[in-house]
Amino acid sequence: MPGHAPEPLGVAVIGAGYWGPNLVRNFQGSASFRLRWLCDLDVARARKVLGGYSTVEATDDYARVLADPDVAAVAIATPAATHKPLALAALEAGKHVLIEKPLAATYADGKILVEQAERRGLTLMCDHTYCYTPAVTKIRELIHEGALGELHFFDSVRINLGLVQRDVDVLWDLAPHDLSILDSVLPEGVQPEAVAAHGADPIGAGRACVAYLTLRLTGGAIAHVHVNWLSPTKVRTTMIGGSKRTLVWDDLNPAQRVAVFDRGVDLAGAAEIGAEARREMQVSYRSGDMTAPALVEREALGAMVEEYATAIRTGRRPLTDGRAGLRVLDVLEAASRSLEFQGAVVGLKGWETAK
Amino acid sequence: MPGHAPEPLGVAVIGAGYWGPNLVRNFQGSASFRLRWLCDLDVARARKVLGGYSTVEATDDYARVLADPDVAAVAIATPAATHKPLALAALEAGKHVLIEKPLAATYADGKILVEQAERRGLTLMCDHTYCYTPAVTKIRELIHEGALGELHFFDSVRINLGLVQRDVDVLWDLAPHDLSILDSVLPEGVQPEAVAAHGADPIGAGRACVAYLTLRLTGGAIAHVHVNWLSPTKVRTTMIGGSKRTLVWDDLNPAQRVAVFDRGVDLAGAAEIGAEARREMQVSYRSGDMTAPALVEREALGAMVEEYATAIRTGRRPLTDGRAGLRVLDVLEAASRSLEFQGAVVGLKGWETAK
Amino acid sequence: MPGHAPEPLGVAVIGAGYWGPNLVRNFQGSASFRLRWLCDLDVARARKVLGGYSTVEATDDYARVLADPDVAAVAIATPAATHKPLALAALEAGKHVLIEKPLAATYADGKILVEQAERRGLTLMCDHTYCYTPAVTKIRELIHEGALGELHFFDSVRINLGLVQRDVDVLWDLAPHDLSILDSVLPEGVQPEAVAAHGADPIGAGRACVAYLTLRLTGGAIAHVHVNWLSPTKVRTTMIGGSKRTLVWDDLNPAQRVAVFDRGVDLAGAAEIGAEARREMQVSYRSGDMTAPALVEREALGAMVEEYATAIRTGRRPLTDGRAGLRVLDVLEAASRSLEFQGAVVGLKGWETAK
Amino acid sequence: MPGHAPEPLGVAVIGAGYWGPNLVRNFQGSASFRLRWLCDLDVARARKVLGGYSTVEATDDYARVLADPDVAAVAIATPAATHKPLALAALEAGKHVLIEKPLAATYADGKILVEQAERRGLTLMCDHTYCYTPAVTKIRELIHEGALGELHFFDSVRINLGLVQRDVDVLWDLAPHDLSILDSVLPEGVQPEAVAAHGADPIGAGRACVAYLTLRLTGGAIAHVHVNWLSPTKVRTTMIGGSKRTLVWDDLNPAQRVAVFDRGVDLAGAAEIGAEARREMQVSYRSGDMTAPALVEREALGAMVEEYATAIRTGRRPLTDGRAGLRVLDVLEAASRSLEFQGAVVGLKGWETAK
Repeated sequence: MPGHAPEPLGVAVIGAGYWGPNLVRNFQGSASFRLRWLCDLDVARARKVLGGYSTVEATDDYARVLADPDVAAVAIATPAATHKPLALAALEAGKHVLIEKPLAATYADGKILVEQAERRGLTLMCDHTYCYTPAVTKIRELIHEGALGELHFFDSVRINLGLVQRDVDVLWDLAPHDLSILDSVLPEGVQPEAVAAHGADPIGAGRACVAYLTLRLTGGAIAHVHVNWLSPTKVRTTMIGGSKRTLVWDDLNPAQRVAVFDRGVDLAGAAEIGAEARREMQVSYRSGDMTAPALVEREALGAMVEEYATAIRTGRRPLTDGRAGLRVLDVLEAASRSLEFQGAVVGLKGWETAK
Repeated sequence: MPGHAPEPLGVAVIGAGYWGPNLVRNFQGSASFRLRWLCDLDVARARKVLGGYSTVEATDDYARVLADPDVAAVAIATPAATHKPLALAALEAGKHVLIEKPLAATYADGKILVEQAERRGLTLMCDHTYCYTPAVTKIRELIHEGALGELHFFDSVRINLGLVQRDVDVLWDLAPHDLSILDSVLPEGVQPEAVAAHGADPIGAGRACVAYLTLRLTGGAIAHVHVNWLSPTKVRTTMIGGSKRTLVWDDLNPAQRVAVFDRGVDLAGAAEIGAEARREMQVSYRSGDMTAPALVEREALGAMVEEYATAIRTGRRPLTDGRAGLRVLDVLEAASRSLEFQGAVVGLKGWETAK
Repeated sequence: MPGHAPEPLGVAVIGAGYWGPNLVRNFQGSASFRLRWLCDLDVARARKVLGGYSTVEATDDYARVLADPDVAAVAIATPAATHKPLALAALEAGKHVLIEKPLAATYADGKILVEQAERRGLTLMCDHTYCYTPAVTKIRELIHEGALGELHFFDSVRINLGLVQRDVDVLWDLAPHDLSILDSVLPEGVQPEAVAAHGADPIGAGRACVAYLTLRLTGGAIAHVHVNWLSPTKVRTTMIGGSKRTLVWDDLNPAQRVAVFDRGVDLAGAAEIGAEARREMQVSYRSGDMTAPALVEREALGAMVEEYATAIRTGRRPLTDGRAGLRVLDVLEAASRSLEFQGAVVGLKGWETAK
Repeated sequence: MPGHAPEPLGVAVIGAGYWGPNLVRNFQGSASFRLRWLCDLDVARARKVLGGYSTVEATDDYARVLADPDVAAVAIATPAATHKPLALAALEAGKHVLIEKPLAATYADGKILVEQAERRGLTLMCDHTYCYTPAVTKIRELIHEGALGELHFFDSVRINLGLVQRDVDVLWDLAPHDLSILDSVLPEGVQPEAVAAHGADPIGAGRACVAYLTLRLTGGAIAHVHVNWLSPTKVRTTMIGGSKRTLVWDDLNPAQRVAVFDRGVDLAGAAEIGAEARREMQVSYRSGDMTAPALVEREALGAMVEEYATAIRTGRRPLTDGRAGLRVLDVLEAASRSLEFQGAVVGLKGWETAK
């Protein structure tokens, strides 16, 4: 029957804390899903999130949710430590699983989830929301079509007066955003190879509140991430430099989120000359126009929810699948080790989690 | 005779390249100096800098300048490799010496200059121009009067489409600014102890074009400097976080260069409890006003020139004396070593160059 | 019973177009109200606004809504031409009435509503949403406590690529925001006395798409409003100058919405000297700090909804009562007459609608 | 002799006040001129401007300057009231004349100067400096090549904490900039036809400190200028809307002075339908990219000085000739009359001063 819309997929949101309500709102707004449950250990909190006008059921009984044959998919927005058992139970019950970042508390846990999902042919997706913003979508497009040329550097700053978390440091709290964005926009064949991390806990919180990550990428490019809970101002800026153009994404400038600069440095004849000669190089500068491409207005979370639906229905991998979540965990774990060892460079597993 | 202005000090500028013309203009604009010579190997260039209406003499004969008894002081703005011989000759001729940053090409060279100047009782000053801006003057004041509380972090970004230099990498080209600012504002008893540096040369220039420095400071604070020649946009922003307040200096925002935020994170009773208890801490957030203090309008270079005059006349150390230049060289050399060793942490000499 | 929360007030939203959904969301989020109906001539549209999970009833039968004894209050968000009949019917049915701006299509219509509501002792409120923003609340506070001194000028710019409306020009579409803000912050005893308006319809839309209003205020101050549907960039900036301080409200700068400048011009002894002498005046300039006061985070519409509840329960006038709506209509009508007569100055009724 | 540079033109600067030093600096920096005199009633002030290292002569004897056969041209930067007599004397002495804006204190005075210069075949030029900025040059180019389409609106804001002048109001002080820019960029066949001005003197300075000008342009477009001495923040923004594109020039944003937006409102079939039908129009919106064209870096005053040289040497009219100065005076006088009559619309002479 052409044009016939498929039945909406029954879905349950697990966790009514910070992120859960956003998932509830977006599943309710999607024609692809029918939200059936909001599940939280604290059922009163779940009820409060649903509000006084909702027909959705609140529960604290996860088993009941998993037993509901009308539930095809779950979305887990609970603390990271609980991701593995909750997701595993869902996969074992034959449900598709979406997990708030990070995929799991450890790489090893995440790997078990990826393997389970692949074995059972279920969708496992990580809610790397930023990857679904119009800005990152445009950036990925620009990089993949070669508009920036060869990648030179990636520099991301994500700082603000943030909630000092009890269970994770600033690295695990904020850097997953930057690392998932990096993962999502890197061109074919370029990946992080090693990471060094420096951090500080100047307020005595017991965990790093300021951290700097440096990643060595294939081919000599460099990536750097600055995350900070102590900044009184909010900055969310990513600069991606290439051999042809460089772009700046300022997520707090809605009038001009992405700016592409036709400015840069060229080495004349750098290709055909030797390294020695290059040192005596002829450098020239391009100082061209800047273009801020028009972006479609769209809520990232809504697009993520639709990607989840499409992945479930078609069986294809979602943009931010479990493996993407695993690649992010790989960097986070290596960065944590580097932090412990005062910034020592730590290699990545990389290849194991190839796209 | 009270109120009688002293005779202006005879001065010669050495080097008519990039920076020399600025020194020429500022010495000419100062009542404390009488500019007598502009000296450059390329005397035509020196003449061009002076222009067609000047009574100042151009020369390529440094010996003649040093032999002029009316010259009490020189200002050296030549490539770093020539700083040592030129400055040494001047000191030996009994002249006071001002040197464009960096003080010298190496710490060892710089040390020789400092020792010579001290032995002879001559003023040796490093032209760390930024330290004389109204912004840095205000920041130093705020930190020293305790307005920020205990120092938590210092984060400086200095990036733009910069001239790829033939003789130095981006670290030696740009970081001296940030390091001299850091040196000039640090409170008593706080100093860098070690540095790690990461860099990249993605364009194949033969030297780092992007670099990140992380400095460990006394007492657990962290400093970080990002310098980059490949950025299509210019950023000059320094954030200095403290236990009471945090300030942001945006040098490209003339309407609001320095902003002091009464926002931050407090740990309740953090002082009197143990580390274990702290992990179960009560965190609270201040979300107060922001104040942008009025700054006097003043050209930094003019203020630097007056500081040079005062130091010469009174014999007191200038704000950015040779030792300040040496402390900056110490960090630069350590950072270069760290770059060579892939970001290994390198300790500083620190104590040798105590203020 | 102390501490016992009162029963929520039954409320119905009339109009499911552009603004209605915002009212629906805010009434649902308020403990002071119980949303009973969403009424629209197009009941399918009303159903769509409520979504697939709501227990609220959709209807196209306004009479049924007014007949519902559980409905104590209505909120009207329909085209301006329908405000009078819909509001009048509601008042006659004994319901409290909230109306989206403007209060009515004409001053005469608005006056009838105000009179009806006053006669019946019912709350009549105009949804001048901006007056409930944290920014305007702070501005009103600053002006009323004298922080700005005597009012000198008020300059408001509200421009963006706006929907060219079929039924109203840019003046009636956008200026109600600026005029209601002006009305809400003016100090006691200062009011607009006359208005001149200039406009243009360069795209041939049949109504002004660009307009400038100049208002003469009591005591020689001036107010100016720039509204424009054709600007490719969005600007929402209001500057309010006073004898002591001047503030700038930039509604698109969430990090610093309100900035209070201790900068200005002083005339020495201006008070005690004659006009002639003043021309030979001694002018001095203050160039002090700028302070950006911390603002509470709060959705304006939520605060407006609570003000509606409080006004209903206590019988006191709401901040933006019908008379405020009438004062705005007075200026809009005079401005329209001025537009017709090429910018002729038109006096206001002012006094009739005294606060 | 091809390539032989012509002899530099002897020039004298008259007036060593606020603007004179800038002219001195730029004439000294130009190979086209040889600065011979700086003339001021206060010869000590002239000497101070020249500084202690100059070979240029200072004088208070204007007759001596005019009698100097080596002086081919003068540049007058004195109070407006003196422009006519000083310029007339120079023209009568056969000198070319450049005058700081405004051309003269009155339209009648200016006209005399224009007639004299034309009769004698001498260059008369008005120093409308902004017209020589890279930004205005680019804007003129974009408008003249049709990139904006038909002109819809011109909106210029020039506000800051300005010096309250003794002899002129804010209109005559600041608006000449905006009006000369408008004059310089208007496409062929479009000119101001009438002006209305509103002002206020809230500080009791004896003259308007805040003013708003509205100009009706040929074909239904509108221009508006906001000038204000009382604003604590500096704004220098001009928006120029057209049927195809709209540009925003923010002179205080060096990183992006000119932005061209491919965004706007289109009326479908507006051309071929009647006015009545248009009211039922189909409106559509373009929401395309923004481009910030690269601008050459150049000091406007230097370019103005070269234009003066070229006009003198070739006999062609300079870009901002006396007639341009006259057109600006026409609007200023009409605006002053409008201010007196509370904003009444005042027609312009326009045609008399056709380009």
